[in-house]
Amino acid sequence: MAAKPDIEIAREADKRPIQEIGGKLGIPPEHLLPYGHDKAKVAQDFIAGLEGRKDGKLILVTAINPTPAGEGKTTTTVGLGDGLSRIGKTAAICIREASLGPNFGMKGGAAGGGYAQIVPMEEMNLHFTGDFHAITSAHNLLSAMIDNHIHWGNEQEIDLRRVVWRRVLDMNDRALRHTVTSLGGVANGFPRETGFDITVASEVMAILCLADDLADLQRRLGEMIVAYRRDKTPVFARDIKADGAMTVLLRDAMQPNLVQTLEHTPAFVHGGPFANIAHGCNSVIATRTALKLADYVVTEAGFGADLGAEKFFDIKCRKAGLHPDCVVLVATIRALKMNGGLAKEELSAENVTAVREGCANLGRHIQNLKGFGVPVVVAINHFTGDSEAEIAAVQTYVEGQGAEAHLCTHWAEGGKGTEALATRVAEIADAGQSQFAPLYPDEMSLWHKIECVAERIYHASEVTADTRIRAQLEEWEAQGYGHLPVCMAKTQYSFSTDPGLRGAPEGHVVPVREVRLSAGAGFVVAICGDIMTMPGLPRRPAAEAIRLNAAGEVEGLF
Amino acid sequence: MAAKPDIEIAREADKRPIQEIGGKLGIPPEHLLPYGHDKAKVAQDFIAGLEGRKDGKLILVTAINPTPAGEGKTTTTVGLGDGLSRIGKTAAICIREASLGPNFGMKGGAAGGGYAQIVPMEEMNLHFTGDFHAITSAHNLLSAMIDNHIHWGNEQEIDLRRVVWRRVLDMNDRALRHTVTSLGGVANGFPRETGFDITVASEVMAILCLADDLADLQRRLGEMIVAYRRDKTPVFARDIKADGAMTVLLRDAMQPNLVQTLEHTPAFVHGGPFANIAHGCNSVIATRTALKLADYVVTEAGFGADLGAEKFFDIKCRKAGLHPDCVVLVATIRALKMNGGLAKEELSAENVTAVREGCANLGRHIQNLKGFGVPVVVAINHFTGDSEAEIAAVQTYVEGQGAEAHLCTHWAEGGKGTEALATRVAEIADAGQSQFAPLYPDEMSLWHKIECVAERIYHASEVTADTRIRAQLEEWEAQGYGHLPVCMAKTQYSFSTDPGLRGAPEGHVVPVREVRLSAGAGFVVAICGDIMTMPGLPRRPAAEAIRLNAAGEVEGLF
Repeated sequence: MAAKPDIEIAREADKRPIQEIGGKLGIPPEHLLPYGHDKAKVAQDFIAGLEGRKDGKLILVTAINPTPAGEGKTTTTVGLGDGLSRIGKTAAICIREASLGPNFGMKGGAAGGGYAQIVPMEEMNLHFTGDFHAITSAHNLLSAMIDNHIHWGNEQEIDLRRVVWRRVLDMNDRALRHTVTSLGGVANGFPRETGFDITVASEVMAILCLADDLADLQRRLGEMIVAYRRDKTPVFARDIKADGAMTVLLRDAMQPNLVQTLEHTPAFVHGGPFANIAHGCNSVIATRTALKLADYVVTEAGFGADLGAEKFFDIKCRKAGLHPDCVVLVATIRALKMNGGLAKEELSAENVTAVREGCANLGRHIQNLKGFGVPVVVAINHFTGDSEAEIAAVQTYVEGQGAEAHLCTHWAEGGKGTEALATRVAEIADAGQSQFAPLYPDEMSLWHKIECVAERIYHASEVTADTRIRAQLEEWEAQGYGHLPVCMAKTQYSFSTDPGLRGAPEGHVVPVREVRLSAGAGFVVAICGDIMTMPGLPRRPAAEAIRLNAAGEVEGLF
Repeated sequence: MAAKPDIEIAREADKRPIQEIGGKLGIPPEHLLPYGHDKAKVAQDFIAGLEGRKDGKLILVTAINPTPAGEGKTTTTVGLGDGLSRIGKTAAICIREASLGPNFGMKGGAAGGGYAQIVPMEEMNLHFTGDFHAITSAHNLLSAMIDNHIHWGNEQEIDLRRVVWRRVLDMNDRALRHTVTSLGGVANGFPRETGFDITVASEVMAILCLADDLADLQRRLGEMIVAYRRDKTPVFARDIKADGAMTVLLRDAMQPNLVQTLEHTPAFVHGGPFANIAHGCNSVIATRTALKLADYVVTEAGFGADLGAEKFFDIKCRKAGLHPDCVVLVATIRALKMNGGLAKEELSAENVTAVREGCANLGRHIQNLKGFGVPVVVAINHFTGDSEAEIAAVQTYVEGQGAEAHLCTHWAEGGKGTEALATRVAEIADAGQSQFAPLYPDEMSLWHKIECVAERIYHASEVTADTRIRAQLEEWEAQGYGHLPVCMAKTQYSFSTDPGLRGAPEGHVVPVREVRLSAGAGFVVAICGDIMTMPGLPRRPAAEAIRLNAAGEVEGLF
């Protein structure tokens, strides 16, 4: 078992040259743009040449509602990828990139854990290949061009009070949430209220992760709404003529990044949109590229299945035409106990009753996922304290739900610990049973889409909203945005909007407080709760202890 | 001759794999961290292992005062490097990196021109290897930690009115020059006035370019003054505990970048501090590494010799213990004519008299440079309209100054056009005649250092300043900063502070309007004029026309 901290295991990794990892997927060295010896981007020209090839099988890893006990969704994604490699399959993993800023607040983390990790860990928590910096630059170029446009005469007649495009930094900086800019006199423009979000909250990030190619990227960037005129007509990024230059800044960032697991399974780590006000999945271009190159692609979605998987299906798969072949739903005995009502301090003792109670959360997710027409397999991510009776209780429960549950020990053993899971997942995917369909049709009204998700996925009895919000949705429908999917922003800790309500609550009310149009990304965000788009640093930020040690390694980041 | 635009020549470059370029300097492939196939960083461990090796010869390229006619300092730097390679020497070039933001205002530029260029041009004008992004992140992490420190109790008792550390972005954004932050209530901290500078103006940039190694980098970062208390004692970055995390963010950026000229001469392109409020040279670590690996290192300094060369000698060489062996002073017939009083429209016709008049500027620089004890060679960067009589007039004049002038045709012919210059420069450097010494001793008072530069380099009759400024200098001396060199910030267009005063003015007055202490970088800035540290975009920003063409190449950036 893995008694060592993740960072130690990661540092001891026997990393292979990235060209060797690319070679496993048939990528010739000249089409890998290296960033050091252990990271590379896959060249656009090579990706363009893959069109027409047959796709591999797509496997989504999702989880029950997160608890402080931990579920290990990414760890299982990595473990399953390694398990597939181990049983002789050509497998690839697709996950999101980490945001730099938050690592200086709370400690950063591994991609995975124990012996199921993606490396290089330090770089992936720092600048990596610069994608997020490119997004920051592209976003802020547009911001500068908007204020510049107003400064030099405002041909577009932007209403200064209605500039909705803010600025971004990949930094936790509460001081930038609300600012007044352009102070200091005539030379500096027109003073106005605005602020900064963290880079992962940028619509540019969501677009990068949904765009088909550079042409589609530019089209979507141009369609972003940056402001409104006095008559409330929207001003688009293309009206400011920023879309071309933004695309140039994002050209390299659009190429997916290739790294490796500890067991040398290829991993595409690309893009990282927020899972609340955005869809929370890695880029479409990475997933598509992986599907062309590998027989099995294991990917994951943010948060629990009620948010992450729903958005993966209804936004990413719908828009990119992806057809998932199997879903792996991750649970831990400890997390099920918390869903069964136990406190974090009570998790060590065996408690089969609490596990059975908590299975209600698991069961709800199984049925929801089946509702999308995709076969479901449960992965029990093993922790050392789990008892055999507890594990058996989950397996029995899952069978009763018409699915199967596999105990996985990848944290302690790597891919060896997921062989059984990998074998079954491959069989199920190969059987071609998936009849994937999104939850609702494009033609449904925006309001009904929100209701549909709330009722069918969250089991809410009602969705409430001001008439102002409903009127806004109707206005967007009149402007031609009615076909867009909805992107729900609510707490990830419960099916309801109350983070304390674990298990499988019924009959609750979902209040929609605000709606936002991401016209370039192509979804309407329904905000059901407080969403923070610029985090702050804690009283004792992790940054205070981060430093290089004598060996030149990073201390304090993990 | 080169009739093609620089960008076309750059695109047609027959680029060699960067490992081959590194091989010319004896850098093994495993010590080159590639960024794509044509850029790499030289690994820190390899650099550390070079200690004790003999240094090559150091050649500084500088120029007469810049005019709208153009001098071609970087072009000559590149041409001389190629010329040295061509005559069989192991040569390397060291120049600064380009800032991303300004390229979206006015068009970006080549590193060099014609057939004397460094490539890849597009990448060098965009994200390159991410160094400036890393500096932006490190700078803004400190900013966030300062406001966070105040928010959580302000243990250091920072005076909110005296926070001097601002934020930075690599973007021309006038709206950010003066801002109020932390608005919106208790959760967002204490509102205060502040603003953003462009990244190249960050003290972090100056430090990265002067630091010996990562340990020295961290020490210097910790010594930066970020605020003052009510009792006016300084608060340092180390008091906020930001120095370790900033160093981690800058670890990769501290490794010099290696690229190549069109003729495959190795070029280190690393760091890019402002040439006004900072010293305007590439990094010490790049120059030192190049000196260990090449027999001849050609580098350049910002602006004309009165600013750039003076700072190169008095700040960079003094602090890094570098001993330049030869200075190449670049002039063009056209620029000399402008210094001789002609307008830009009058430059095409032969005018030997104007050339002779303009030589006063050249002569002043020659004598100034000789004053540092370093042999001077003049390079006449040839333009097609130059007449033989004009060229002869310059050569005669320069001989009268006790130096020699060589006609160079590298723009049209590459290294072939600088063979004569390269041969002589190598001979002079090899002869070991240089007796380099900085202009003033460390022990001189700060005020006298300013006077010394103004009188001996600018030929001013007087330096004026408020008693407030003199008192500030004395206060810094009392605090132990008296040994620092001064960094003059004045117009680059004249020896005087009047940009219209060409030639070799005498007896002018230099008014010092403001002084700033860069305690981490290690110099005191004397500002003699208006210095803009956050540019704005013009009415029609270049960004509006920047886009990818069908071939995926960048259009409109150049």
